[in-house]
Amino acid sequence: MSKEGRNDKRQASIKGVTPRGEDYARWYTDVVQKAELADYSTVKGAMVIRPYGYALWENIQRQLDDRIKATGHSNAYFPLFIPMSYLRREAEHVEGFSPELAVVTHAGGKELEEPLVVRPTSETIINEMLAKWIQSYRDLPVLLNQWANVVRWELRPRLFLRTTEFLWQEGHTAHATEREAREETLRMLDVYAEFAETCAALPVIRGRKTQKEKFAGAVDTYAIEAMMGDRRALQAGTSHFLGQNFAKAFNIQFLDEANEQKYVWQTSWGVSTRMVGAIVMAHGDDKGLVLPPVLAPHQVVIVPIYRTEEERAAVMQAVDSLKQQLAAAVRVHVDARDNLSPGWKFNDWEMRGVPVRLEVGPKDVSSRQVVLARRDTGAKTPASWDCLTGTLNALLADVQKSMYDRALAFREANTKRIDSYDEFKAFMDAQGGFALSHWCGSTECEARIGEETKATIRVIPFERENGSGECLICGGESDGRVVFAKAY
Amino acid sequence: MSKEGRNDKRQASIKGVTPRGEDYARWYTDVVQKAELADYSTVKGAMVIRPYGYALWENIQRQLDDRIKATGHSNAYFPLFIPMSYLRREAEHVEGFSPELAVVTHAGGKELEEPLVVRPTSETIINEMLAKWIQSYRDLPVLLNQWANVVRWELRPRLFLRTTEFLWQEGHTAHATEREAREETLRMLDVYAEFAETCAALPVIRGRKTQKEKFAGAVDTYAIEAMMGDRRALQAGTSHFLGQNFAKAFNIQFLDEANEQKYVWQTSWGVSTRMVGAIVMAHGDDKGLVLPPVLAPHQVVIVPIYRTEEERAAVMQAVDSLKQQLAAAVRVHVDARDNLSPGWKFNDWEMRGVPVRLEVGPKDVSSRQVVLARRDTGAKTPASWDCLTGTLNALLADVQKSMYDRALAFREANTKRIDSYDEFKAFMDAQGGFALSHWCGSTECEARIGEETKATIRVIPFERENGSGECLICGGESDGRVVFAKAY
Repeated sequence: MSKEGRNDKRQASIKGVTPRGEDYARWYTDVVQKAELADYSTVKGAMVIRPYGYALWENIQRQLDDRIKATGHSNAYFPLFIPMSYLRREAEHVEGFSPELAVVTHAGGKELEEPLVVRPTSETIINEMLAKWIQSYRDLPVLLNQWANVVRWELRPRLFLRTTEFLWQEGHTAHATEREAREETLRMLDVYAEFAETCAALPVIRGRKTQKEKFAGAVDTYAIEAMMGDRRALQAGTSHFLGQNFAKAFNIQFLDEANEQKYVWQTSWGVSTRMVGAIVMAHGDDKGLVLPPVLAPHQVVIVPIYRTEEERAAVMQAVDSLKQQLAAAVRVHVDARDNLSPGWKFNDWEMRGVPVRLEVGPKDVSSRQVVLARRDTGAKTPASWDCLTGTLNALLADVQKSMYDRALAFREANTKRIDSYDEFKAFMDAQGGFALSHWCGSTECEARIGEETKATIRVIPFERENGSGECLICGGESDGRVVFAKAY
Repeated sequence: MSKEGRNDKRQASIKGVTPRGEDYARWYTDVVQKAELADYSTVKGAMVIRPYGYALWENIQRQLDDRIKATGHSNAYFPLFIPMSYLRREAEHVEGFSPELAVVTHAGGKELEEPLVVRPTSETIINEMLAKWIQSYRDLPVLLNQWANVVRWELRPRLFLRTTEFLWQEGHTAHATEREAREETLRMLDVYAEFAETCAALPVIRGRKTQKEKFAGAVDTYAIEAMMGDRRALQAGTSHFLGQNFAKAFNIQFLDEANEQKYVWQTSWGVSTRMVGAIVMAHGDDKGLVLPPVLAPHQVVIVPIYRTEEERAAVMQAVDSLKQQLAAAVRVHVDARDNLSPGWKFNDWEMRGVPVRLEVGPKDVSSRQVVLARRDTGAKTPASWDCLTGTLNALLADVQKSMYDRALAFREANTKRIDSYDEFKAFMDAQGGFALSHWCGSTECEARIGEETKATIRVIPFERENGSGECLICGGESDGRVVFAKAY
């Protein structure tokens, strides 16, 4: 195939992204695959995270890991395989997970005496060890985190959002008192919210899950919920107050200062590769990804523009020197591919969501300037070579802030106070969004709304408007609005 | 339990390390457990990596990851589960691994149509994707790396050295020509050797494995071999030239510049959590771990010494200010536990192998000095508060170099040129070590030596002395000595 033929083929494939307005689900899959974030494996339900997607995940990891360590936690690693009997010890837990389990029955050339479950989450295998390590109040708190793969069998996979295997961090802590454990649960929810807002430019609503929506085995589950581009909700992180459920199931006791045996109080909390899906859906457009600068693998891509060999030499010399100037402060990538046109490269990096494109042509060399193009707004401005690092840092900070503001404005424009069930049904049938409505607190009313509208209670938000009201369904008393939405 | 009772109990448990001379295997397990690097899980064959051990692994990861990226590779992530049929496509590969496989037969509440193997290594699942991604010479080389857990069923587990599940990085590359792939194989072996020597203070011998000892599916396997404290060898990293074995099994072809379809040439290479075991065994002594400063979680631990409350206030003020002074340049930890004596802390940090202990007592405060104690030699020297960062950096560099020199001298002292099989057998029966001996190249002679002495050919070293000789067994011609040893 000739260079041109190859160019044409690539161009066509980039243009082949389904518009969001036509089919949002196909747009999402197109963008994830064409931006080379991930691909489906030939194994059903499984995902391959490609280098560009993994680089984004590594930046998410680094930001989260710094915050997890700054709040006093240490990383550790626990086994992948969990004896089936461990899962059975906490009844609610095993019931919640059993349809999703993958089970190893044969190993080392023999059938195993007890089947091993591939971890869907690690509370049980970690608690088995904590029971051995914790003896005295002096051993508390135990503040652990693990970066790991987990498996929950998935029949209708979607890249990053629902895959049989996914990557995450799971925090697991044990405390002497209920108060400390509850404080920890909310501290980590705050860490997640701050990460989502500051790094992923994702405005989130913090709140508590209903008993129906909580984690199997928790006393209370808290979550951060974000609005995606199709107005659906996505749970971007969860933090669980486990009470003494697992402590009692695994007999984790300690001798307190008064020399009495007590059960520990526990928490667990996690953020997964779903966060990548949230970033795609909250910020992307019909041209592809739009990545927040704090997390983008490349913050700036330099595209050299030239026609003749002479121009090429002058431009590439300038590009090299600019790259050196910027590299200490900015994640910069030079697109030096000489078989592709600048226009093709522009489309390619727009698809991949690089926050700022820096163009350098022969005229720019003589006037010692460049052109900066923002991915989020498309705005192009010239900039001098002098102090370019400062200019770019300011521009990247502005892109980060604008992306957050835009996502917040979108969420606010698509959030509505709704007090009648007819209006609620019409809202969920039409464009959808977040409905702030009253609910009496009963699982029965909650379930009926879910069945009839597919909308669920995302969270009982911490920041609730004053004022009581009447439940959408039964008219029963409500002491504040909750957030309803269709969700991923 | 009183503070003193508790102290006594801990003291006893630290003292409870079996001396190396008495039982090396028990010494190893004692140190790994008492230094809290890792613990056995209740699941047979499985290991829990505790925070201190994981922090050491994170430092290994960071150093290796930087080197892997600096040589042009990108991280990615491929599925944990591999269809059994993929493994079967490369005959030698599946034969090598089948006794070690763990197999998922049930998932999502049903029996699977095709069993899934939990990856023992990822050549097959990665190649399945490469066949889809690679079309043209312009798509080459593909330079991937993955940080992952892998499973190889283990009946006689030993912490870090042999566990059913372990962590590693596995590089996988595809090239247009044999020459490029062979260069890549040796480049990564060099990266591993440089890492081992510079970071882990581990002198290694680079060389090629025999056909008997190579990786199942490779054309040639290369390795770095290190000597442990009991004079056995440990393979600390491997790099494989795969030829076109997997390319043909998975049909990975590309259109070259002359428009012809060609199979790619491939490599794979890995370093695992075994490296932690190597560091323990190469440097540890009867007091516990001795960690190389480049990888140590804490490079310096500050132990405050005081008796009265007044002394405590003055000493802790000095400690805080010293910590602030050092923290930007050195990984420093303050042991502020007030229920433990300084002597107990000294033992504790010696067990954990912290390279330098910094003691501050009331007299040190008035004279503005500290005492620095090296873990490797035990030497204690006073140092002024002024320029303490510089003093410590120089001391840490000296510890790192001394540890390497000492390990190298130990290896040289226990390496012997041996030309008679009787002497060889006596050597391996007695203290053991590395025997440099002649071998004719036949698998038959190699196998006989292994059966009769438990010693195997570790590598055919790159740096071979000139001079031919006669095979230990058959007297056949040999063009240079190879390295024999008993191995982990």
